[in-house]
Amino acid sequence: MPKGELFNLALRRQFYFPAAEIYSNAPAGFWDFGPIGVRIRNRIIELWRKELVEKEDLLEICGSLILPKAVFEASGHLESFNDPIVQCKKCKSLYRADQLIESVTKTVVPEALATEELDKLIEENKVSCPKCRGELGKVRLFNMMMRIEIGATANQTSFLRPETCQNIFLDFDRLFKSGRLALPLGIAQAGKSFRNEIAPKQTLLRERELGQMEVEYFFNPKKINDFPKFEQVKDYRLNLMRLGKKIESISCERAVREKIVFGKVIAYWLARTQQFYQKLGISLEKMRFRELEEEERAFYAAETWDFEVETDLGWVELVACNYRTDFDLKAHSKGSKKNLSVKEEGERFVPHVFEISAGIDRALYVALDTAFRKEKRGQEERIYLKLPLQLAPYLVAVFPLVKKDGLSEKARSVFELLEEHALPALFDEKGSIGKRYARVDEIGVPFAITIDYDSMDDNTVTLRERDSMKQVRVKISELPETLWKLSIGKTRFNQLK
Amino acid sequence: MPKGELFNLALRRQFYFPAAEIYSNAPAGFWDFGPIGVRIRNRIIELWRKELVEKEDLLEICGSLILPKAVFEASGHLESFNDPIVQCKKCKSLYRADQLIESVTKTVVPEALATEELDKLIEENKVSCPKCRGELGKVRLFNMMMRIEIGATANQTSFLRPETCQNIFLDFDRLFKSGRLALPLGIAQAGKSFRNEIAPKQTLLRERELGQMEVEYFFNPKKINDFPKFEQVKDYRLNLMRLGKKIESISCERAVREKIVFGKVIAYWLARTQQFYQKLGISLEKMRFRELEEEERAFYAAETWDFEVETDLGWVELVACNYRTDFDLKAHSKGSKKNLSVKEEGERFVPHVFEISAGIDRALYVALDTAFRKEKRGQEERIYLKLPLQLAPYLVAVFPLVKKDGLSEKARSVFELLEEHALPALFDEKGSIGKRYARVDEIGVPFAITIDYDSMDDNTVTLRERDSMKQVRVKISELPETLWKLSIGKTRFNQLK
Repeated sequence: MPKGELFNLALRRQFYFPAAEIYSNAPAGFWDFGPIGVRIRNRIIELWRKELVEKEDLLEICGSLILPKAVFEASGHLESFNDPIVQCKKCKSLYRADQLIESVTKTVVPEALATEELDKLIEENKVSCPKCRGELGKVRLFNMMMRIEIGATANQTSFLRPETCQNIFLDFDRLFKSGRLALPLGIAQAGKSFRNEIAPKQTLLRERELGQMEVEYFFNPKKINDFPKFEQVKDYRLNLMRLGKKIESISCERAVREKIVFGKVIAYWLARTQQFYQKLGISLEKMRFRELEEEERAFYAAETWDFEVETDLGWVELVACNYRTDFDLKAHSKGSKKNLSVKEEGERFVPHVFEISAGIDRALYVALDTAFRKEKRGQEERIYLKLPLQLAPYLVAVFPLVKKDGLSEKARSVFELLEEHALPALFDEKGSIGKRYARVDEIGVPFAITIDYDSMDDNTVTLRERDSMKQVRVKISELPETLWKLSIGKTRFNQLK
Repeated sequence: MPKGELFNLALRRQFYFPAAEIYSNAPAGFWDFGPIGVRIRNRIIELWRKELVEKEDLLEICGSLILPKAVFEASGHLESFNDPIVQCKKCKSLYRADQLIESVTKTVVPEALATEELDKLIEENKVSCPKCRGELGKVRLFNMMMRIEIGATANQTSFLRPETCQNIFLDFDRLFKSGRLALPLGIAQAGKSFRNEIAPKQTLLRERELGQMEVEYFFNPKKINDFPKFEQVKDYRLNLMRLGKKIESISCERAVREKIVFGKVIAYWLARTQQFYQKLGISLEKMRFRELEEEERAFYAAETWDFEVETDLGWVELVACNYRTDFDLKAHSKGSKKNLSVKEEGERFVPHVFEISAGIDRALYVALDTAFRKEKRGQEERIYLKLPLQLAPYLVAVFPLVKKDGLSEKARSVFELLEEHALPALFDEKGSIGKRYARVDEIGVPFAITIDYDSMDDNTVTLRERDSMKQVRVKISELPETLWKLSIGKTRFNQLK
């Protein structure tokens, strides 16, 4: 869907909008999520929790957003979490050097190029300020972490975490040892991270305050191919785009056998990642794992596959899958002077980590983009969000056909019946029934119940399905169980009556 | 329960622990929540969402944690969100002046006293540094907001929000107008706030990074007593502690009639707040709303009732109920130059706000404290968490009696059956059955299923209740529906078989 159209729907239905927007000088890259946006966003996190945390027996933590400087000295972020920036000498505008060069030369500039090399590219390609054509200064590195001073004498410099995983590395020792656990062990976290981006975009795709859901999977590197769960995915095919190649559909087994990935643990998690985004409604043809060259990878990664989805904005990165090896635990062992190694079968070693680092808001953006439908029905145009059941903001809407003659009260009692059964329902009695259907279609509610005059006589209601717009008649007394079974996929709508 | 005992349990079961604890110099007041802690904490938020957001038809948002300086210039926080601090001239230790004076004089020092008055109290009472007995300097004000510079030239000063409600005031206009809504309108948010506390405590009770769940209820001040929903609570009794009085049990109707509160809207929300904490398992006798004197109230509040719960640490404030009047919307109208008034029945005015500002982590602390049980059973001591069903981290645990003879596989299939039916279950096959029961008792899981040798023959299992330790035999095929009905309170355990 064209970007403008999704943004219009997002604003009209208040899925998300710029933070502090009533202040004209509020900085870009910060977003608020409105009532329906919050619900869909929460459903994405819940689905992630179910599919990648609970089904995989991982531990989930919720850690502090603010961490002391020593953590980022050790992790390498203080030294290496930088963007190259360049400033116009004349008008003082600031740019990300690599992006500016890319926009002029129309070629890809690797993210990790040294400042001198960027200076050289600027000179060679005669890159000047796009705004005033002024001369550019020297490229310098800008650290993207946001600094905070803790304490009244400002003597405890800390930072907002730039990635949620750092808490996981810090907590690994406690969770592993006092839980008396064994490897492999996955620890997960969903929450906010913060990056002082130079050029945040006017969408959810490059935020300064971003939602992340991350899995860190700790394993014995000697056992990267001693991994029984791999059997479950060995025939599952990944869409892999190796360096310099086109997208290929490659079974996990082949990916391991031909050493396209480092081992079974990695292939398994790539498979689980791809399966998760299929559950968000994204079709296989629009997905790929893109292998990153060494200079494109983050400083902690020995192997990286970016999971990308094709949209009208091009290929959008939703997940970075990083083989972080023992980089982080070793770094924090050194920084904290605490031994973070483990003992297995008599041998002591520092576990390796494979990371699945997903953006929550990017997933939301792509899920909405994927679900958007605009169809002509005779004279009328119909917009609806074909969200998968598990992402819907509500399971069902409840409408009285009209407000009078006791229909409103009857509908309210049906709504309360559903609430009692913990079924997420929305009540609406404002405006024509057509407008109410249109509204819940636009926010992706899969089912709607209408209480009409017949309901008053026979205690049945119509149950309408969003996608097909088909209706069936259901007894009120059977609604809770019917809807519960629809919600968990134990019944399908076209099996009713 | 004694503080030490809860903290021991919290650490042993990893409910929560200090953030970045492997670094010895990490600042205090930051906490990480472990796997079980996260789940119980999320259940508290979900119960709040159900009881105070969904049942009340409020809108929930999720806003940016970082907001521009202009917001806090307008809101008054830049000028007024201060703590009085005092430093020892000799050893340089820092103290909150009011707390230090209180600890010496054993009298209450109002929070909003001027620095000169605090200096006077220090002099009069000969207060010196508790550490080195050195002389104290002058009291000064310290702003508790955490500052962040956004952008590479550090020209966009922003702050981490000190309360979640500011997003709500900023978004009110968009939500109200583009949603074509009418007053009264409640908007809610749960999330993190940040306060640079001088003396964070070694518990969840005074954090620098704190969880808040806030309701802002917007209404026409002329209609503070024109509020039909009040009928639902008019006979409900509040535990009110008026200025200079003892706790009294006063019906909402009387509180309004005798003008103990400003009006029906306020009494209604006090009632809903008290009811919510009853659902967390706290008994009425341990609750009170304490009225605050003018100088104790926050700078934006015309009437404040602190909802407090009695624990072994004394009365703990869980919620501040503030009548913020039109203070915030007027302030942001002025600051943003955007008219935030609304029109109702031909009249234009700025809505008033009643706020219910609850701490998430304090609620978690008190819920755990309330649920803790230690009982002697013959020789054995039994610890369990008698958490209400809605706060339990899992609904049910699934255990094979032993690992061998196919019991493990059978138990796994029961676990998967429950997962398919979206029933939150925990699988455990490690250690003796007694130890596994003890473990799930300690983390508050209300039910446990054991698969034994009989299960292999007749497809039944034992279902054990945590509190009574009673067991019944249930058919595996009936487990999903039985557990679903137990989970929503439609069946009680003692009604089974």
